[in-house]
Order: sequence, then structure tokens, then C-alpha cells
Amino acid sequence: MDSSQIKSEFRNLQLYICQALEKVDGLAKFQEDAWTRSEGGGGFTRTMTNGTILEKGGVAFSAVEGAVSEAMKKQLGMEGESFFASGVSIVLHPFHPRHPIIHMNVRYFELDNGTYWFGGGIDLTPHYINENAARLFHQGLKALCDQFQVGFYTKFKPWADTYFHLPHRGESRGIGGIFFDHLDESCGLGKAKILEFCIALGHLFPILYAQQVDFMEVKTPTEPELAWQATRRSRYVEFNLLHDRGTKFGIYSGGRTESILMSMPPMAKWEYNALVAEDSEENKTIQLLKNPINWI
Amino acid sequence: MDSSQIKSEFRNLQLYICQALEKVDGLAKFQEDAWTRSEGGGGFTRTMTNGTILEKGGVAFSAVEGAVSEAMKKQLGMEGESFFASGVSIVLHPFHPRHPIIHMNVRYFELDNGTYWFGGGIDLTPHYINENAARLFHQGLKALCDQFQVGFYTKFKPWADTYFHLPHRGESRGIGGIFFDHLDESCGLGKAKILEFCIALGHLFPILYAQQVDFMEVKTPTEPELAWQATRRSRYVEFNLLHDRGTKFGIYSGGRTESILMSMPPMAKWEYNALVAEDSEENKTIQLLKNPINWI
Repeated sequence: MDSSQIKSEFRNLQLYICQALEKVDGLAKFQEDAWTRSEGGGGFTRTMTNGTILEKGGVAFSAVEGAVSEAMKKQLGMEGESFFASGVSIVLHPFHPRHPIIHMNVRYFELDNGTYWFGGGIDLTPHYINENAARLFHQGLKALCDQFQVGFYTKFKPWADTYFHLPHRGESRGIGGIFFDHLDESCGLGKAKILEFCIALGHLFPILYAQQVDFMEVKTPTEPELAWQATRRSRYVEFNLLHDRGTKFGIYSGGRTESILMSMPPMAKWEYNALVAEDSEENKTIQLLKNPINWI
Repeated sequence: MDSSQIKSEFRNLQLYICQALEKVDGLAKFQEDAWTRSEGGGGFTRTMTNGTILEKGGVAFSAVEGAVSEAMKKQLGMEGESFFASGVSIVLHPFHPRHPIIHMNVRYFELDNGTYWFGGGIDLTPHYINENAARLFHQGLKALCDQFQVGFYTKFKPWADTYFHLPHRGESRGIGGIFFDHLDESCGLGKAKILEFCIALGHLFPILYAQQVDFMEVKTPTEPELAWQATRRSRYVEFNLLHDRGTKFGIYSGGRTESILMSMPPMAKWEYNALVAEDSEENKTIQLLKNPINWI
């Protein structure tokens, strides 16, 4: 299996996910932007705004290649002359404060020296945590992991807890999910099987999101709910710009800014030292974000 | 002149600036939050919201001391057992898109080995650049610099152009101002005189901002003006979280998050690949941000 096959499977995954999300939303239509990278490769960024459920969403595909720069060598900690990298990244921001933000990413990287690995992750950021919905999300992920490798969920779930964490706020971005990196044959699965796992995760993604949306019975959002959503969205911005390795690497290495920052919420608010009432739902969510939880 | 004098002059400067800004605004009243740092020192964070001109503003003072950590040693590139640091930081976000965002900072740092330096900066971020107002701002800064040292403005103005730059957007944060760091006797002024320069810059700050506000004749903002302001505010967020050294150092080193992020705008919006009409005022501003301009 060569890189062109992975590229084509990832591109198909992007198209599949967009179609599935358009069905979930009912109104949303993704628009496609094609771009090329002067050093080699390019991508298709697909975005939507103002659906029925989704306010702003992006599903990006890229496949880039070229010479390994000095900065990249340093970051990789290994030698190589040229690289190939491809991936699909998704972030969805819903209108309703009772619907969660969701993110997913699958990616592949290879060097001309034969080294390769897959990485990826999915995590859910409810503005208000519903514990049953959180359980449903993690159960879905565990079931998928178990189909491929016993031990994947046990390893990838705490990895997400560590990764999707805002140390400066003392809280996690949401209820986590799974995160994995540098996945190669040493995990016990062959290359084709790992790719299959990534694609299966991508196919599960719209199902998991539809589950979350279906789970919540929503009324017209109240002003306090919308204000809280705006604050939680500002935390999402902080995570992406201060901590997310993909965003920072992309921005600092001269990636395509608009594709990278399609993850930003449509709007965010910052209030100095915003406080919530002790017995409020907002505070319940904050408390649940303080420490990793076993949702299964 | 010892560190306690610098601390007290900086604290007085904070109080002076808050009073002056309350006068400029007419309605704004700063609220004070005192905090302490477990490793030594603390600060007073003064914030306001919903004045007549200012929507959100913060004027922070801090004076911290303690052991030099390994991370700090690495960043400083020099030896020292204990440090003292004090500073005043200001960011103001006005309601009206025709009024500019403004930032100022003065700071002092010393090590127990006798090394010390001052740093600081001021820069203006108009949502719409008015070239006459930009000139006025720079003329005021140059006049102040010239009172202390011929060559300060010539050196500090391009330093600001370099510092307040968003490489990932290919634009500067605004029309710049002055920026300086590691200022000690080698600049030709003694320690007391450099402190005097910092305090004089602080005293000039509310005058410069009042000038900007007075300069603009404003009407009720239009929807397109407010939308543009929200986009420019998102660039301000991007600069602070991705590039600003003070913010990043503060956040990553475990500083007080709310005091550091008081610089965030009250609200910001991100639209994928937002475009502006070629012959618009918005595009004129973007064009003026592409390259440093000699405003004198």
C-alpha cells in the first residue's frame, strides 16, 4: 500500500463525511476550496456555515510532500530527505449551547527512509456536559477500538485526556475521546489495518455526532445559555492557539492559515474572571472538566 | 534606586492611568482584584467594562520575585539565583469600530547578580486606519523619545514593527508604535532616567488615547463596521495567543491566567476566508498593514 492509496482513501473519507454531515444537518452544504502548496502538494478545504444544527463547520483534506526542513528534522528527531503527509481534520461548532463542539483528525506521515506512522484523535466538547451523552460517545469509541485491537481504547483514552488539556485553566477541553500518534506495526496491526482503523473512525464520526444531536431535546436557547457557550468557545480558541500541536506546527511552519484556523468558533467572548453560581449547571460542567473521568 | 522604589512607582503609575482613563471615558470605573503568588509577590489587576467609549479595559500591575527556575535560566541565557520583576500592562478595547484598540506595557527585571533591564512598548490597533490619526500617535511617541535620547524613536519604532507582526496573516497588528527590551545603562541613560522614561510613557498613554478618541467623529456604527471590528478583534486574539512573548511566557510558566488574558477582546468572530471588497475602507486598512510605514 503506497502513499497515493492513503491519499485517495483520505480524500474519499472527507467527501463521505461531508455528505453524512449534510444529512445530519438537513440544510448545510459544504463549499470546497482547492489550494496548492508551492513546495509540493495541496488540499481541499470544505466549509459550511448556517445550517440548521451546525453554525460553522470545516472538513479539511490535505496531502503535502517535499524536502524535510531543518525545523522538521529537529521536531522529528530523525533523519530523512523527503516526506509525505496526508490527513483529514474536522471541527464542528453547533448553534445550540446544548449541542457539543466536536473535533476529529486522522493523519499519515512517511519519510523516504521507510519510516511511517498514523496519528489521529476525536474529542467532544459539550458546553454543558450530559453524563449519559458522554457515556454514549465513549462507548461508541471503545466498541470501535475493540474491533481492531484490545488495548487501543485503554491506551488512547487517557492519551486524549492528557492531550486535550488546558493547564492554564486547570481543565480539559471537554469530555475527551481518543488520541493516538506514531502508530505503526509495533502496535500489532499491519499498515493496511491501521489505515482501516482510521477510515472506520472517520465513518463512525458522523454517527457519533448524530447520536449526540439526537440525544438532546433542545428548546430555544436562553441568554445565559448563549453567554456560557460564548465563554466555552473562548476556551476552545485558547486551546487551539496555545496548546494544540497541529495548529501551532501548521501556523509556525507557514501552513495555509485559513485551513488551519477553520477550527475557530464563529464567535467567542472573554469576560474578566467570569464566575458561575455554585449550584449551577455551568459549574457542574466545570467540575466535570477538572479531572479525567472513566465514562464507560 | 532599589526595586521597592520601582515597584512603588509602577503601582502609582497604574493608579494614575486608571484615573486618567476614567476621565477620558466619563463613565468607566475600574475594579481592583488583588492577588498573591505563592512563590513570592503578587499584583493588582484593575479592569472595567461598559463605559461610554471603552467596552473592556484592563490595567494590570504586578511585582513578583523568587528563585530563578531552570526554564527561566534557559530563557534568560544567564545565571542568577533569584529575580525581581515588576510591570504595568494595559489593553483597551473600545465599543466603536472607529476607535482603536490600544496596548501599553512597561516592565523591569533584575537578578541578584546585579543585572537589570527595563522593557516596554505601546502600539495602536485601529480597526480602520486613519492616516492623520496614525501620524498624530507616532508624532507623540517621537516627541517623548526625543526628550530622553535622540535615537530612541529611530530604534524603538522599527522594533515595534517587527514585534507586533502576525507572520501567519502577513500583516502587522496595527500601526505599531514603539517597543524596547533589555534597556540598561548601555543605552546612554542611567537607571533612574530609564525609569523616568517608562513613567513618562505611562503618563503620555491616556493623553495619546484621548487624542485618538477626540480625533474621530463617530456616528452609530453600522453592521458592516461591527462585523469588521469583530474580525479584527480575532486577529488581536491570534497575535496574543500565538505570538506575544509576554502572554505565552506568562501562560506557559503558570502565571495568573485571568490577569494575562484580560487583554482579550470582549468578543471576536472568525469567518472562513473572509474577503473584503477591493475598493473598500476595510481593504485600505489591510493594505496599510502589509508593510511598515514611516508615519512621521
